[in-house]
Amino acid sequence: MERIALEKKVLSANDQVAAALRARFAEYGTLVLNFISSPGSGKTALLERTLERLPRHFRAAVVTGDIQTDNDARRLVRYGFPVRQITTAGACHLDARMVERALEEWDVDPLDLLIIENVGNLVCPTSYDLGEACKVVLLSVTEGEDKPLKYPGAFVRSRLLILNKVDLLPYVPFDVGLAKANARAIHPDMEILETSCTTGAGLDKWLAWLTMQLRLHPAAVTA
Amino acid sequence: MERIALEKKVLSANDQVAAALRARFAEYGTLVLNFISSPGSGKTALLERTLERLPRHFRAAVVTGDIQTDNDARRLVRYGFPVRQITTAGACHLDARMVERALEEWDVDPLDLLIIENVGNLVCPTSYDLGEACKVVLLSVTEGEDKPLKYPGAFVRSRLLILNKVDLLPYVPFDVGLAKANARAIHPDMEILETSCTTGAGLDKWLAWLTMQLRLHPAAVTA
Repeated sequence: MERIALEKKVLSANDQVAAALRARFAEYGTLVLNFISSPGSGKTALLERTLERLPRHFRAAVVTGDIQTDNDARRLVRYGFPVRQITTAGACHLDARMVERALEEWDVDPLDLLIIENVGNLVCPTSYDLGEACKVVLLSVTEGEDKPLKYPGAFVRSRLLILNKVDLLPYVPFDVGLAKANARAIHPDMEILETSCTTGAGLDKWLAWLTMQLRLHPAAVTA
Repeated sequence: MERIALEKKVLSANDQVAAALRARFAEYGTLVLNFISSPGSGKTALLERTLERLPRHFRAAVVTGDIQTDNDARRLVRYGFPVRQITTAGACHLDARMVERALEEWDVDPLDLLIIENVGNLVCPTSYDLGEACKVVLLSVTEGEDKPLKYPGAFVRSRLLILNKVDLLPYVPFDVGLAKANARAIHPDMEILETSCTTGAGLDKWLAWLTMQLRLHPAAVTA
């Protein structure tokens, strides 16, 4: 019980920082997406494919979280947008203060788009608001259709599910219809896209979704 | 800082329960393995292939942890061994008290082998001793070779790494040699096996490893 009480206290402190971040993002008109998935579902690869398709004048940046290594930042920085690695040194998720600190040391305002790539973990990052406009959950088709039922938090709290690595569908026992039904059993209004960063399948739809979010975003900067 | 202090307190309380469990397992001569991996790396499938190969007279049991659903227990119980599901209702890992409670309500002693399938999470379960003889970490070849470097805790603390889903190697950019080198950079003495639960590749070696652990285990029951 003591542990649950403390967890609530930590989360409420986090919520305050997240609210301040959200106010700041609203002021600048920055759309912030918080990417969540298991390790190895392809978050970094999807961000690589995304950054290489963004117009160069577009004001985008990425904050990427990992327990150790700056591998992801090194992969992402090649696309010419500002990238900042947060190394959590053991923590299983990003929290709002880590994001706040990363932004403080880094003069990137005003941005149109900030993508936060969370630590690879389908459980803990789900509970920490980072001030984002919405969470996006990735699920690789190699992980099984039952994951929305087994890890409901990530699916309830994400606006969009990206079923990734669909190029592997011929080689794995994965029923796309069942995966979608499971996701919608948990979150009836969930939007779902299918992508492959190997073949490029579905990336146009993902970019269209992203563009639509930028347009819908209250303070969106018009081109 | 407050949070770190509490985390230490929780872990130390866990260690006490784990020590009691370990003493009990030693008394009964039960080999206990704690399986850790990302969601969807194939822990349950490997356990299915393992249970179906064990002699029927063998005294084995499985405790399987998930945040929600008893899917895994329903999959595993078909092989005729006792299986108990722990539903953590949100918690991102099993702790020793959950295992203790599952065993209390369940008269399965004396066992030769108890396999604990942890919650799918490559981070948090790593920090919780469950009284096991050793941890076993699974990594699917779809997850990328860099995971030992990015999630070192699971690899430092596991005796064995199982590279799973090797049947998918022709379809994914995964360098087995690099993955092994990364694992051994983190944990030089790490034992490594390669398996596929689809083709059966490597399962004989895995069963031989398991048999060897049962023989080496101090109080092992001889057949």
